Amino acid sequence: MTNAKIGRFPIVATSPLVDGGKFPAKAFEGEVILFQATAFREGHDKLAVELVLTAPSGKTTRHLMDLSNPGLDLWQTKAKLEEVGEYSYQISAWDDLFETWAYNTNVKLEAGVDQELMMLEGSKLLDEFAASAPKAAAAKFSAFAKELLAKKQTPNERFLAVVENARELANKHPLRSRESLSEPATIKCERKLAGSGKWYEFFPRSEGAKLNKDGSWTSGNFKTAKASLERVSEMGFDVLYLPPIHPIGTSHRKGKNNTLDPQPGDPGSPWAIGSLEGGHDTIHPELGTEADFKSFVKAANKLGIEVAMDLALQASPDHPWVASHPEWFTTRADGSIAYAENPPKKYQDIYPINFDNDLPGLLAEVERIIEKWVSFGVRIFRVDNPHTKTLEFWQELIASVNAKHPDVIFLAEAFTRPAMMATLGKIGFQQSYNYFTWRNTKAELVSYLNELAHQSADYFRPNLWVNTPDILTQYLQFGGKPAFKIRATIAAMAGASWGMYAGYELYEAVARPGSEENIDNEKYEYKARDFDGALAKNASLAPRIRLLNKIRDENPALQQLRNLETHWSDDDSVLVFSKRLEPNFNGGKDNTVIVVVNTDPHSVRETMTHLNLKALELPAEFEVEDLITGKKFSWSEHNFVRLDAFTEPAHILRVVR
Amino acid sequence: MTNAKIGRFPIVATSPLVDGGKFPAKAFEGEVILFQATAFREGHDKLAVELVLTAPSGKTTRHLMDLSNPGLDLWQTKAKLEEVGEYSYQISAWDDLFETWAYNTNVKLEAGVDQELMMLEGSKLLDEFAASAPKAAAAKFSAFAKELLAKKQTPNERFLAVVENARELANKHPLRSRESLSEPATIKCERKLAGSGKWYEFFPRSEGAKLNKDGSWTSGNFKTAKASLERVSEMGFDVLYLPPIHPIGTSHRKGKNNTLDPQPGDPGSPWAIGSLEGGHDTIHPELGTEADFKSFVKAANKLGIEVAMDLALQASPDHPWVASHPEWFTTRADGSIAYAENPPKKYQDIYPINFDNDLPGLLAEVERIIEKWVSFGVRIFRVDNPHTKTLEFWQELIASVNAKHPDVIFLAEAFTRPAMMATLGKIGFQQSYNYFTWRNTKAELVSYLNELAHQSADYFRPNLWVNTPDILTQYLQFGGKPAFKIRATIAAMAGASWGMYAGYELYEAVARPGSEENIDNEKYEYKARDFDGALAKNASLAPRIRLLNKIRDENPALQQLRNLETHWSDDDSVLVFSKRLEPNFNGGKDNTVIVVVNTDPHSVRETMTHLNLKALELPAEFEVEDLITGKKFSWSEHNFVRLDAFTEPAHILRVVR
Repeated sequence: MTNAKIGRFPIVATSPLVDGGKFPAKAFEGEVILFQATAFREGHDKLAVELVLTAPSGKTTRHLMDLSNPGLDLWQTKAKLEEVGEYSYQISAWDDLFETWAYNTNVKLEAGVDQELMMLEGSKLLDEFAASAPKAAAAKFSAFAKELLAKKQTPNERFLAVVENARELANKHPLRSRESLSEPATIKCERKLAGSGKWYEFFPRSEGAKLNKDGSWTSGNFKTAKASLERVSEMGFDVLYLPPIHPIGTSHRKGKNNTLDPQPGDPGSPWAIGSLEGGHDTIHPELGTEADFKSFVKAANKLGIEVAMDLALQASPDHPWVASHPEWFTTRADGSIAYAENPPKKYQDIYPINFDNDLPGLLAEVERIIEKWVSFGVRIFRVDNPHTKTLEFWQELIASVNAKHPDVIFLAEAFTRPAMMATLGKIGFQQSYNYFTWRNTKAELVSYLNELAHQSADYFRPNLWVNTPDILTQYLQFGGKPAFKIRATIAAMAGASWGMYAGYELYEAVARPGSEENIDNEKYEYKARDFDGALAKNASLAPRIRLLNKIRDENPALQQLRNLETHWSDDDSVLVFSKRLEPNFNGGKDNTVIVVVNTDPHSVRETMTHLNLKALELPAEFEVEDLITGKKFSWSEHNFVRLDAFTEPAHILRVVR
Repeated sequence: MTNAKIGRFPIVATSPLVDGGKFPAKAFEGEVILFQATAFREGHDKLAVELVLTAPSGKTTRHLMDLSNPGLDLWQTKAKLEEVGEYSYQISAWDDLFETWAYNTNVKLEAGVDQELMMLEGSKLLDEFAASAPKAAAAKFSAFAKELLAKKQTPNERFLAVVENARELANKHPLRSRESLSEPATIKCERKLAGSGKWYEFFPRSEGAKLNKDGSWTSGNFKTAKASLERVSEMGFDVLYLPPIHPIGTSHRKGKNNTLDPQPGDPGSPWAIGSLEGGHDTIHPELGTEADFKSFVKAANKLGIEVAMDLALQASPDHPWVASHPEWFTTRADGSIAYAENPPKKYQDIYPINFDNDLPGLLAEVERIIEKWVSFGVRIFRVDNPHTKTLEFWQELIASVNAKHPDVIFLAEAFTRPAMMATLGKIGFQQSYNYFTWRNTKAELVSYLNELAHQSADYFRPNLWVNTPDILTQYLQFGGKPAFKIRATIAAMAGASWGMYAGYELYEAVARPGSEENIDNEKYEYKARDFDGALAKNASLAPRIRLLNKIRDENPALQQLRNLETHWSDDDSVLVFSKRLEPNFNGGKDNTVIVVVNTDPHSVRETMTHLNLKALELPAEFEVEDLITGKKFSWSEHNFVRLDAFTEPAHILRVVR
């Protein structure tokens, strides 16, 4: 029989808990976590429930929990995790003898029964508290115990004189009679960028690329790209992600717009990794030397930007592995190496790796490669299509890398079914791409943002990208400039992490016909964009991006994942959400931001919004400051808004408390 | 770190599983269980998933699972548990090399690429199957392997000639390449009455009780009650539950209608257990001797009826325990023993037991008492208010009793919050009272019946009582005779177990004013009911009860808990549900019953019903036989019904296949 002991006071569910404790729950430095427990007892007496939280440093703190839903016996409290490392927690439930006595005494005094008996029992109970309390407190308990028996006052007078102070003292020095404890559960707290950051993506070969008079291109490189760091920093980003920087294969190289007949000078897709010049451990010669890359990383760091690399575990037919380790690929019955295919489609420029053939060898090789880039100052890896590789590989790799470098972050780029996406998070990926780009209507956003913040946050940390080289949604293709402003606003405000791929700030909206990605896609050619020109012509979204990132920096509530709350509006396109950091988690200062966005890029919307004041602990009337315009308003539960997509589709309101 | 190994093919959720495996899932003999698993793999290749089920006898069977929801990677199959004892199961997932090859070959043959190569790879694969198959099968595999390479036919012809037979053979002798297995999980399969039965309750003191000419009563007893067994058997019940049969206390005895001033001759509440004559191990002298009781139990068994006793762990102030074991109660500060109270209400006729004072002593004593009644032939205990006792007590008691007597069934009478009710089931109670009596509208019933059949069935086995001495709902008080017919029909058809308290068949509908229980309640007085007179006057529901129980007996689908499916009707009072047992679980014969009930006892309803034909695997048109009237109808997806609450509020339709 597998019966677990139920214990004196059943604690039957605790949260956060991932798959019953099979995997640690995720958190990041500074994250405020909601702890919940279903705990109950027999009969009518009172129960007390506490969170017992042990930090990586070994320090244990106890936090009394509130019975937030009596019908469901649901207790909760919040705590902020401030240390990186492994937290553990247990839920403690005990017989709240003081509250049981206080409740019964109150009822019985009113009913006029057992009055002196209740004084006597209270006195005995306070003597018990005294017996186990430190000296000063014990003296107070004993004094209260005596007071309850002092017959010159009525029992009611004695009770009222004692109960509040005795309760305070009992909470400070509880008896914890017949304590039950839940099984310990683990929370892995990682550094802040694992959960909260502002990401930008560019192709270093495009940054400083030049179209020559003869129609040929001179590639950008780490030296020219260094100049672009300023632009990225100006917009307020703190992570810069680079597509693969390795040599690109020439066999079956893809031409412009993903064609099969490349022209001389076509640079090829950076994801077709490997040539005679080297593989995953090598820098593409056109991008520069290893020293150039190191210098680029240093320059970025100086601007407060971390560089993220791509980890795409596949090879072009020219990759050195093909000769040195043919066993890492699949050999077909005719002796050829299998290229990637999704029959009848063929991807002959790519050889997938077969992880079943030599798992230990591949683990060692990939770890060697990662160690090399880590030694160059890289701490973030964006993993291309992890869901086409075996999960046992990822689990071992990430555990092994993180054992040596707990600060290394892996971002999963898996757009697939929910079980796979969730499991990649559970087995170690610190962060995940997700379906945000395709959630554009208000109804979709309310559902999805709540899912991300509340249902999956224990194991799945979303990065809300507004576009990528692979994704240019119909919403952006056909929504005009307002669409770009709206999506950036929602991503930056709702996402603890959000991301943007270069060109977004230029409103690049034309797709390759029939596809959902940019025409003349940078994956297959150089792009020389005129960012400054667009700024000068007032045709750039960069100033808005900068403002959004500044608002994030100044409002710590926006850097959290789990504190999102959606509110009501009467218009089916007007999205209302808030994020709040309570004063006790923010150095004594409340930080509440309410965001109202018109998600329809083609219209002006006028509607009433309706806030859940209770959830935000707001009074009936309060002042808000719009962080976009600087205007101040007096708001209440019900507020009129007018949002013109063509001028300003959003309010970002900070509550003035 | 608590990271579980993810394995080669992740199996991330299995069902049934209670609290991640902390407690065994429940089943009963003959129950058909739906097994589910979320299992998936990397990339595009095919996965095969199997249930590996080991019966208490040690016999292991494997059942291929269907991918019932590809988007959610949800696999399922059903199995019937036929042995009492502990089953264990694992989910197995493996690389389905044959299906991957067959799928790819099919696509490639259509596209005209790699045709001979696919033949070659298929041939090599079938040789692999041959290598691990028994001799005869190996020869067949080898023959297929050769056939694929026989170049006188086109690859397409060769493929078509081989694929179906090879698939069948491969399913019989699978390779199970790179098999992953989930953690073993446990299912406790108990005897049928634990999950499926027809219960009746009567007070033995009332059966044969006589009002004497002087106004006094002569109590009924086990001898006179024996005559009533025929009545219970006639109606088709198989469990007879008796309220406590022990001596009743005289201190603070309750009078008629729960009054505090009993009159001479008032028999008192059977739940005020214990007097000078004895306690829980003693029979009330007025009910007869131990020999009388044994004889009563035997007589019941002869009629196919098991006798269930009450286990109410509390004492009247006159109980022998009060003197012999004062430590089993709570002593107050003034030295008195605490009576039951819910301040300011007092229940001075009852002393609650304090389980914290001497848990081992109480466990031993209660087990001694149970052993005694078990030796008298009792195997079912209806436990009064288990939620006011500690759960650790119940868990230990039930485990200990069931270790010696696995056939002993405990029914929990706990009407309280969901966490407690669910946990009582998880820690061992075989069966539970529930909120069925208060779910009377169609909307309430659709929601609640689905919850009981699908959400909580792994740990909570409901018994659908239509009334009890404590419950006479407003629906019955004010619904007239149709209400009694409607509720019995729903309970008997929807419930795997259902129950009825004597008097229901006489339409007893008058409540004590302001309460939800019968006036002149049998808990406090004798009742002499004229069952035969009512039958003769055509004023009894007994013939309907008999018919319902007969329909249950003849349709095994109705004896299952988890097979309930609700269907649609356009009328907000017309409830439609079905129960089905597929031919492979019923000796090759399909058994499908569709029940349509007008839940409004005051009206005639005409409406269209709409069946989920796919769920029932029904053709567009089919014949049904009404088991109430014997009439036959031709039914389809959409059917008109007219249900007159005043004549016949229900159809009970058996599908004729």
